Amino acid sequence: MSAEQPKPNSQDRAAQNVSAPAASQMWGGRFARGPAAIMERINASIGFDKRLADQDIAGSKAHAAMLARQGIITQADADAIREGLDRVKEEIDSGAFTFKVELEDIHMNVEARLAELIGEPAKRLHTGRSRNDQVATDFKLWVRDALDRADQGLKALQAALIDLAEKHTDTVMPGFTHLQAAQPVSFGHHLLAYVEMFGRDRGRLRDARARLNECPLGSAALAGTPYPIDRFMTAEALGFDRPTANSLDAVSDRDFALEYLAAASICGMHLSRFAEEIVLWCSAQFRFIKLTDAFTTGSSIMPQKKNPDAAELVRAKAGRVIGSLNSLLVAMKGLPLAYSKDMQEDKEPVFEADDTLALCIAAMEGMVRDMQPNVPALREATDRGFLNATDLADWLVRELNIPFREAHHITGRAVKAAEDKRVGLTALTLEELQAIEPRITESVFPALSIEASLDSRRSFGGASPVRVREAVAAARERFL
Amino acid sequence: MSAEQPKPNSQDRAAQNVSAPAASQMWGGRFARGPAAIMERINASIGFDKRLADQDIAGSKAHAAMLARQGIITQADADAIREGLDRVKEEIDSGAFTFKVELEDIHMNVEARLAELIGEPAKRLHTGRSRNDQVATDFKLWVRDALDRADQGLKALQAALIDLAEKHTDTVMPGFTHLQAAQPVSFGHHLLAYVEMFGRDRGRLRDARARLNECPLGSAALAGTPYPIDRFMTAEALGFDRPTANSLDAVSDRDFALEYLAAASICGMHLSRFAEEIVLWCSAQFRFIKLTDAFTTGSSIMPQKKNPDAAELVRAKAGRVIGSLNSLLVAMKGLPLAYSKDMQEDKEPVFEADDTLALCIAAMEGMVRDMQPNVPALREATDRGFLNATDLADWLVRELNIPFREAHHITGRAVKAAEDKRVGLTALTLEELQAIEPRITESVFPALSIEASLDSRRSFGGASPVRVREAVAAARERFL
Amino acid sequence: MSAEQPKPNSQDRAAQNVSAPAASQMWGGRFARGPAAIMERINASIGFDKRLADQDIAGSKAHAAMLARQGIITQADADAIREGLDRVKEEIDSGAFTFKVELEDIHMNVEARLAELIGEPAKRLHTGRSRNDQVATDFKLWVRDALDRADQGLKALQAALIDLAEKHTDTVMPGFTHLQAAQPVSFGHHLLAYVEMFGRDRGRLRDARARLNECPLGSAALAGTPYPIDRFMTAEALGFDRPTANSLDAVSDRDFALEYLAAASICGMHLSRFAEEIVLWCSAQFRFIKLTDAFTTGSSIMPQKKNPDAAELVRAKAGRVIGSLNSLLVAMKGLPLAYSKDMQEDKEPVFEADDTLALCIAAMEGMVRDMQPNVPALREATDRGFLNATDLADWLVRELNIPFREAHHITGRAVKAAEDKRVGLTALTLEELQAIEPRITESVFPALSIEASLDSRRSFGGASPVRVREAVAAARERFL
Amino acid sequence: MSAEQPKPNSQDRAAQNVSAPAASQMWGGRFARGPAAIMERINASIGFDKRLADQDIAGSKAHAAMLARQGIITQADADAIREGLDRVKEEIDSGAFTFKVELEDIHMNVEARLAELIGEPAKRLHTGRSRNDQVATDFKLWVRDALDRADQGLKALQAALIDLAEKHTDTVMPGFTHLQAAQPVSFGHHLLAYVEMFGRDRGRLRDARARLNECPLGSAALAGTPYPIDRFMTAEALGFDRPTANSLDAVSDRDFALEYLAAASICGMHLSRFAEEIVLWCSAQFRFIKLTDAFTTGSSIMPQKKNPDAAELVRAKAGRVIGSLNSLLVAMKGLPLAYSKDMQEDKEPVFEADDTLALCIAAMEGMVRDMQPNVPALREATDRGFLNATDLADWLVRELNIPFREAHHITGRAVKAAEDKRVGLTALTLEELQAIEPRITESVFPALSIEASLDSRRSFGGASPVRVREAVAAARERFL
Repeated sequence: MSAEQPKPNSQDRAAQNVSAPAASQMWGGRFARGPAAIMERINASIGFDKRLADQDIAGSKAHAAMLARQGIITQADADAIREGLDRVKEEIDSGAFTFKVELEDIHMNVEARLAELIGEPAKRLHTGRSRNDQVATDFKLWVRDALDRADQGLKALQAALIDLAEKHTDTVMPGFTHLQAAQPVSFGHHLLAYVEMFGRDRGRLRDARARLNECPLGSAALAGTPYPIDRFMTAEALGFDRPTANSLDAVSDRDFALEYLAAASICGMHLSRFAEEIVLWCSAQFRFIKLTDAFTTGSSIMPQKKNPDAAELVRAKAGRVIGSLNSLLVAMKGLPLAYSKDMQEDKEPVFEADDTLALCIAAMEGMVRDMQPNVPALREATDRGFLNATDLADWLVRELNIPFREAHHITGRAVKAAEDKRVGLTALTLEELQAIEPRITESVFPALSIEASLDSRRSFGGASPVRVREAVAAARERFL
Repeated sequence: MSAEQPKPNSQDRAAQNVSAPAASQMWGGRFARGPAAIMERINASIGFDKRLADQDIAGSKAHAAMLARQGIITQADADAIREGLDRVKEEIDSGAFTFKVELEDIHMNVEARLAELIGEPAKRLHTGRSRNDQVATDFKLWVRDALDRADQGLKALQAALIDLAEKHTDTVMPGFTHLQAAQPVSFGHHLLAYVEMFGRDRGRLRDARARLNECPLGSAALAGTPYPIDRFMTAEALGFDRPTANSLDAVSDRDFALEYLAAASICGMHLSRFAEEIVLWCSAQFRFIKLTDAFTTGSSIMPQKKNPDAAELVRAKAGRVIGSLNSLLVAMKGLPLAYSKDMQEDKEPVFEADDTLALCIAAMEGMVRDMQPNVPALREATDRGFLNATDLADWLVRELNIPFREAHHITGRAVKAAEDKRVGLTALTLEELQAIEPRITESVFPALSIEASLDSRRSFGGASPVRVREAVAAARERFL
Repeated sequence: MSAEQPKPNSQDRAAQNVSAPAASQMWGGRFARGPAAIMERINASIGFDKRLADQDIAGSKAHAAMLARQGIITQADADAIREGLDRVKEEIDSGAFTFKVELEDIHMNVEARLAELIGEPAKRLHTGRSRNDQVATDFKLWVRDALDRADQGLKALQAALIDLAEKHTDTVMPGFTHLQAAQPVSFGHHLLAYVEMFGRDRGRLRDARARLNECPLGSAALAGTPYPIDRFMTAEALGFDRPTANSLDAVSDRDFALEYLAAASICGMHLSRFAEEIVLWCSAQFRFIKLTDAFTTGSSIMPQKKNPDAAELVRAKAGRVIGSLNSLLVAMKGLPLAYSKDMQEDKEPVFEADDTLALCIAAMEGMVRDMQPNVPALREATDRGFLNATDLADWLVRELNIPFREAHHITGRAVKAAEDKRVGLTALTLEELQAIEPRITESVFPALSIEASLDSRRSFGGASPVRVREAVAAARERFL
Repeated sequence: MSAEQPKPNSQDRAAQNVSAPAASQMWGGRFARGPAAIMERINASIGFDKRLADQDIAGSKAHAAMLARQGIITQADADAIREGLDRVKEEIDSGAFTFKVELEDIHMNVEARLAELIGEPAKRLHTGRSRNDQVATDFKLWVRDALDRADQGLKALQAALIDLAEKHTDTVMPGFTHLQAAQPVSFGHHLLAYVEMFGRDRGRLRDARARLNECPLGSAALAGTPYPIDRFMTAEALGFDRPTANSLDAVSDRDFALEYLAAASICGMHLSRFAEEIVLWCSAQFRFIKLTDAFTTGSSIMPQKKNPDAAELVRAKAGRVIGSLNSLLVAMKGLPLAYSKDMQEDKEPVFEADDTLALCIAAMEGMVRDMQPNVPALREATDRGFLNATDLADWLVRELNIPFREAHHITGRAVKAAEDKRVGLTALTLEELQAIEPRITESVFPALSIEASLDSRRSFGGASPVRVREAVAAARERFL
């Protein structure tokens, strides 16, 4: 869209159709002939900006009501406009509306239909505004809804995670670093890590919402308007906190779209991490969880195979969101003020990111509600390896007052002895342990059980079930 | 898509619909209820991969013919398949075909319809292949066409540029560095710079085409097949140079899509540079060219305003292509072999980039054919400033054998003298010049004309009209 | 860095040096021979993470003080550690410290030196923590400083903009859309648009700061620790609001780095827009401002040429920041919990972005303080064209109650008449205007002056000097 | 760098130092005071472009020799220049050279030192060229070397892979799709998939090399030069195929850097995939390979833990390379012709990508030469699941002429029967199989062994050891 009315010069265009056959020959299979057709195709935004219909109508209604209250148009005109816009909205909602490419964008499509429906008053609606501030207002309203949608979706996902975590505060599993099992944690504790991530995502969405919530309407083409409009009234009617402070900035700004895309990209990254874990956990090598056929595709001849398609797609789709952010950053780079047509390229990346993110969050919530942890397999994986090695070292420090580094050294020797016997630490006899460090007593053995190991990590935020139960309650309080 | 048949377990899914109301409540407005619906939405690719229909049918025809020649199916079956596929193609071409989301992707949609049409033989078509090698083959064929399309589009754009350059080999304009006028060049010379860029783009497209031209078909799910298939035959039938050498790589590889996107991104960057220049040149400050209404939008009340919308959109759309490249690189990062569902995210970025690039190239060709250089304005901009200052220095070196650095110093003083008089260098009197350097003679003046300056730059590839005329002829030879 | 002590096995590595000559032959010129050397090169982070020295020492001091208060180490040990760390810091600050690659990272370099200085107590420092929570704490502290630094830099830049805007609240210039002059604005109004952008940037930085301000220390390797540590005490000592809530998340999280990079990318985009305008404004075609030699490079022989190098570099460097964001998003994509070595790749992009952003903001502040608007040229550019055309239309609506669309039509005819005479609208006679619309009176002419046009745009946030003067005062209040 | 000599105006700068205290107060801790210092910091490139020293000197030697042969300078001057440049190179190589920030870039640093060494003749060297064509030439030469370096590194990596593949043509392992074991392949076959990927990478590098190999030298500032230079001579002397065809393009073009970065990004993606597999394979859950301490870090107390740090870093570093590509695409987007200072931002991304890629390739080669496949674990993982299920289906099609879909159905029932018995397919009795399909005979059992399954996949490029042995030989032929 642009601030001014297009002036189609049919002669000019007809001449073009004759004089430039080369393009049409080359691209004829895909575009209608001639530059006029190419221009229409590259210029029209109605193919995607019709998603702004509700916002456009809401903005026009607020604008008309304000124009009337300020005496710029009559109340009768405002009433006609309001009723006409309601009819346009009904037509769009019911699918009866015909979007026309030659009307270029959602604003002209709505206004033209309004003029058909109510005649004269429709021509007074555009007083004191321009398509530049109109599209900025519409799109901000849309992005604000997208922020709210994502927030609600993430809240539902957090609820699913907290519900599952609550059932598994005590279900032991190996905690990994470098994809190497390191220390016991609980399945619930692991899930709550994602609750934190999605909580930060929601914080970013909320901050973005608060920051975008200034209304551009009334900034007009770029410099404001001489009509005695009341921008505070339209701002309030549309749920904004205040009007924007600078008219040039108001029509040039797409920060709100970028900030949404940045928050969505980080959220997409979080989802990709969880998705990766789900893919790993579903493999025959891990078998940590089971997903039903609701979120996997099976194979008619290899029944052991449950392809975690939904998780794979969530993992990949982070790329789409990141690509969308990138695409808008590139488009905005180096643009002089104020409105440039380049900024029409803001919508598709945001629409795509919103579709993608909504789908990924919903799929992930579905998977969380669907997933069954394989408790015996998780336990078995925790028993393998020497996940209690640090517990022996800690016992030596705590009970025998052995310095930390020396305790580590002793532990290393004990592990070596166990490895040589192909057993775990708890299968060493007291004699064997005393051969390494004579002061070790029977009381070491209880400290080396997986349960004791897990239970001992009671520092704030730690993996101990005591802490995890508190954390579940706190998460419910903080997030739901 | 995935290598195996999906096994929908309706009980499982029904159970899900009951047990997970949270997601549906949150996202209910956008998705049908329950996980089954979410899974269908995230999993199905038919919404976009129907663009592979032609390629899928061509691949299946080649595969069936080969199966028959190798005795794996009967010739009668192969004939039935071939005729059936032709009918499916007709249905798709005519718009009569109904794509079904529950059949997930283009492969299953085509095969299911084929089975309806021809029955039994359709069930033998999938022998010795899998959806993994099938989709890789289809998509390679599609990208190959996209490469050819872009090559043809760029050739047409080069033709437009060369035609215009030929008319303006002698039209002087300022050559800029740092957006500061530096030395005279000609409009034709400037246009030919873009001919070089698009020539390199075409080279990248050609190299990408040659590299992708190995056929994955017959790699099956990931390991090849025990059937005595002839991969060389299908490769040849589909215009490939040879079959791929490793079955795991064949189903895991998306290099061809990335290489296309990388070439498209660099091309998009070139287009954005030219678009930026068109925007500058159309401004009241430059007035270097005029575009007709075919590629601008005017304003009903500001007739001096010709918004170069098409150029602005081309400039911005580089972002979309770069974002698409980025998105697929992210999706592919860190994927283990062989096929993962993540790879289904390869198509939309490529489709979008192809649509975008085709549109930008066609719009740019249209603008080149439409544009009228403003010869007087170009000349006037060349006269302003001291674009002949280096010519004075060169004359001093050449005629008086003064060392380069000293010549520069003398020139600086002459320019200062002219600036003080608010005139150009040629408006200084001989006396004034001799006051700076006594050996200067009358013969300096002809060397300082813009024409002489331009004409003198006769080094290979230089701006002299002599060279530009040769370059036009050579470009025609090299590129058209 | 990683949670555990490295166990260099020299035999193993020596064996490698013998068995793998191929790599060393190929890459020998760049890497020392053999895999051990390659591993050291790829693994060691000390080359860049030494920038975390201050943060690492501050974290260790807080940790030691807490260990003593909790009775985990003695007060004497804590005192020795504190004093030893102060000496290490002095050595680093003075340049006397030798960083050792074989000690891999900043944590080991500091601890090893501490052990040399104070012996035994140094070995108790690492009790109840791990390098995983240590590096997360250090890096958060560093990013927090970077956020504060950028905030201060942007505040100074806003101050420079507001100071200059205040001088030029009434300096008319053309307001552009599509790089086409559209309506008069003032130079001050234009500058204040950037004050808004940088204000939003500062808001993002502040929000990011508040969100990161939870302390990971005490999360240990990934699961917390059995020692009775007090995480609230260390959090407070280091200026954090609270400890992180989940130990797995605490060591896996790099959101704070990404959120900083996202905010920096949007800010870099803003800077690139302003830089583009400066480049345009310095061109011979615009001549809107003058920069001194402080921020341009001249030419010894073309004195009219002032290359705006600093602005060009600021414009380009947006790419570096965006690239850094991209790079960390890719690195984090698809990483399973908890700490993975991949996360060591978080620092260089952030360091680079911080260096780049600081330099660009400082250069931009310098340019704003340096720039001299060319008031006559700005005025002249505003007079050209028909920037008062909308004012005529508005007069017709306001004074004659002509409907908006009809008023536009009349204005178009007036502009056409003026164009035919090659004059501006105000140079038409009353008769000429009345020939178009008989009701027009003398009183139209005052409304068409540039001053009246500018002054009339008094809507909130509009370009009228009345509003701009208020906006300057408000900006000072809001931002400085 | 820029085409003209900088004209430092000390008065101007001194004035600045006084008038702009704000910046220095804010940023004082990091930058020297005042705008002059900020300008120097943002403008100077010597900090990184000193890596072009060899290329700069080679270019100057070729240029001087040409100037002499063309009679533009004397042979004596050319000799002095050549010898002087050799001395400068020696000083740089030995570390004796002092790079000076105030000389801004590598070109001025070398030329200034040359002038110190040889006096007068140094001042004639810059005749007929400019820093614009000089830096393009230098950087092309550097990138050409980088392309060759990467090609050699990848060749060595391919050699390591082929060597290891040759040892393991018959070592069975599970082939995965969706990270679910699907069909048996061999370890050698899996490694050869990467040989294909790196082969395509090398193809891209070679194509990029051929495309960049046109010499910009002699294009001068942007328009060519009036001196009778011979660009073909310098092109040949520097190993270029020909001079560039258009002087404006020659100084504006950075395609060669972008094409290198794009090829490097795709290669980095390949490396990240292999790195991901190494991380998986090293986990306790997979245990498919063993890496020695040369490429892992262990733990002093958890001896089972071998953190695959090198692989994790290679996986992450793909992000750096992709970020570098992104950063230069953004910088180049929308730049008007010809040279702009923005283009100085081309070098750091390329230098970083080259360092990163070289390190990752070398580390990967080292890991391949270091890795020991765990043959029993690979075999055991292949036995688990029903990786021979498709073999049963294929036997039914082949031997009993049962249609493909029906064969699949029968197989599904057999697998179900085996699952119920908790055994593999081969542990079913003939009676049990015949209960499902009466025509099954004893001869089915040999077809179901893992060895038979693997061996049967003899289609070209398939996993059968017969094919893999041929593929090893062919790969050696094609790539080494």
